Amino acid sequence: MSVYIGVDLGGTTAKIGLFDAAGSMTSHVAFSTGREKGFVVIMREMSEQIRSILGENGFDDGDLSGIGIGVPGPVVRHRVVDGCVNLDWDVVDVAGALEENGFTCPIVVENDANVAALGEVWKGAAAGYASIVFVTIGTGIGGGIIVNHQIISGAHGAGGEIGHMPVFFDAFDFSCGCGGRHCLEQMCSAPNIVRVAGDVLEATDAPSALRHYNGGYDTRAIFDAARRGDGPAREVVSRVTQALGRGLAVVSAVVDPECIVIGGGVSHAEETLLEPLRNAYQSYAYPPTRQTPILKATLGNLAGMIGAVHLVLQE
Amino acid sequence: MSVYIGVDLGGTTAKIGLFDAAGSMTSHVAFSTGREKGFVVIMREMSEQIRSILGENGFDDGDLSGIGIGVPGPVVRHRVVDGCVNLDWDVVDVAGALEENGFTCPIVVENDANVAALGEVWKGAAAGYASIVFVTIGTGIGGGIIVNHQIISGAHGAGGEIGHMPVFFDAFDFSCGCGGRHCLEQMCSAPNIVRVAGDVLEATDAPSALRHYNGGYDTRAIFDAARRGDGPAREVVSRVTQALGRGLAVVSAVVDPECIVIGGGVSHAEETLLEPLRNAYQSYAYPPTRQTPILKATLGNLAGMIGAVHLVLQE
Repeated sequence: MSVYIGVDLGGTTAKIGLFDAAGSMTSHVAFSTGREKGFVVIMREMSEQIRSILGENGFDDGDLSGIGIGVPGPVVRHRVVDGCVNLDWDVVDVAGALEENGFTCPIVVENDANVAALGEVWKGAAAGYASIVFVTIGTGIGGGIIVNHQIISGAHGAGGEIGHMPVFFDAFDFSCGCGGRHCLEQMCSAPNIVRVAGDVLEATDAPSALRHYNGGYDTRAIFDAARRGDGPAREVVSRVTQALGRGLAVVSAVVDPECIVIGGGVSHAEETLLEPLRNAYQSYAYPPTRQTPILKATLGNLAGMIGAVHLVLQE
Repeated sequence: MSVYIGVDLGGTTAKIGLFDAAGSMTSHVAFSTGREKGFVVIMREMSEQIRSILGENGFDDGDLSGIGIGVPGPVVRHRVVDGCVNLDWDVVDVAGALEENGFTCPIVVENDANVAALGEVWKGAAAGYASIVFVTIGTGIGGGIIVNHQIISGAHGAGGEIGHMPVFFDAFDFSCGCGGRHCLEQMCSAPNIVRVAGDVLEATDAPSALRHYNGGYDTRAIFDAARRGDGPAREVVSRVTQALGRGLAVVSAVVDPECIVIGGGVSHAEETLLEPLRNAYQSYAYPPTRQTPILKATLGNLAGMIGAVHLVLQE
């Protein structure tokens, strides 16, 4: 029997899915990661969890035809992670570590946003498309670019790192966690959307439901308020979607995708985010690319595992 | 005998090269194009010129294994040009027109900057690389992106149109010829470099060799003066390379190429352009991409014909 493992390795948990050869997930499990565990322990626990999910479903290593893994950092040669801030990893050979734990099947490692993009093309919002830009809006801005069903990984694993495009020279000059400045992420990630809300509320006396949170509102509260017509919340959404629309217009002039897919926690705002985003995008985009559809991702937290398996199936 | 034709179809001339199956150019010819001729006449003359260069070298249609053509506009499905400002073409089927003129070999049409990029990868500055960004700086800013030896054409033929990335929100708000605003091209194309020089000279009383041109200087005069230490000219080069460095940093965060190749008339400024450009690029780029080499194109006016033939050889 031929089965596959897809892993979405995150900063706090790793999700492991068992897939059949048609790419359907039949079972999945999660275990906690975290920077305090360290690379060697996480790799050993991942190996144990993979063998555990195989065993519980009546399989063993001999049935395993491939392991795909998405990790939150730049990946080179589909094996090596070139630093991972969330897990406090320097340069580590993820594929090599699994091999040392005894796995002999093909192992493919890629950036988490890149494999999520591949998942959305394979079985999600972009099914039927061959070339897309995927943007995940959460704690940071992640991106994945797929051209003709292939991930643009980049020479240094930085392909699709659109959160770190230096595009905001007019708005402000904060330093970004990446070490650069003027990054798209500084305007549009969840913490920065909350920051923008603080700026907007401070600059106006207009009533707003957000004032009753005593600063404890999150992006969901902001988008909920905007949907109900709250003036300051709508101003926040306007600023954020103008900024993100500019960023997407820039990306379209570079790779001209068939569609753009928006995922991550903030995408749950649905049309409260997407409608003004489409309008902003169209006002900035190079004319031949103005009609490019902007869609909401549909696979949610499963995109990483699904895309990781597709990657190993492609090899 | 198997021979190939590579065509670089420009707004004033078309260059036609005859290539052997190894991709060496054995002969070439040029004829004038221009918007007054119209699409049908240009296609007929191109067909005649192709048969003429074949005949002069002892070949005929039966020896012809493929025709590759670069055109100055967005191209879809390697056949159809979706508007060409320089030639006043609307949507035209270039491959279809050559077929109507009796050619039965494979015909592949692509954007001119895209095929030039492919030429530089095949036999030029980027030989040995698989994934590059090519930027041509002349009357406009053209771009071509190659990933794993494949052109990123884009869903609307707009792949690599980096001259039309909307990135200059801080500097000015001119309308661009593309119909958009804030485009990279508005700061860095040859006419805009001359415009920047006018701004710089007007804002200072500093002596400059450029003042003796009575406004008739071109980009060559500007870079020559900068090389000799002319203060205002150096300021122009600084502004232009800062702007272009920002643009290239943005592109690297999207596709993360192995190297960046600069071509077009302005690239003849060599290190007077490239050294400050590298410094500017490194100051803006996403850290993993900061060491990406920036090289001067080496094929000059031949890049289009060479890349066009490589494209048809790839098919």
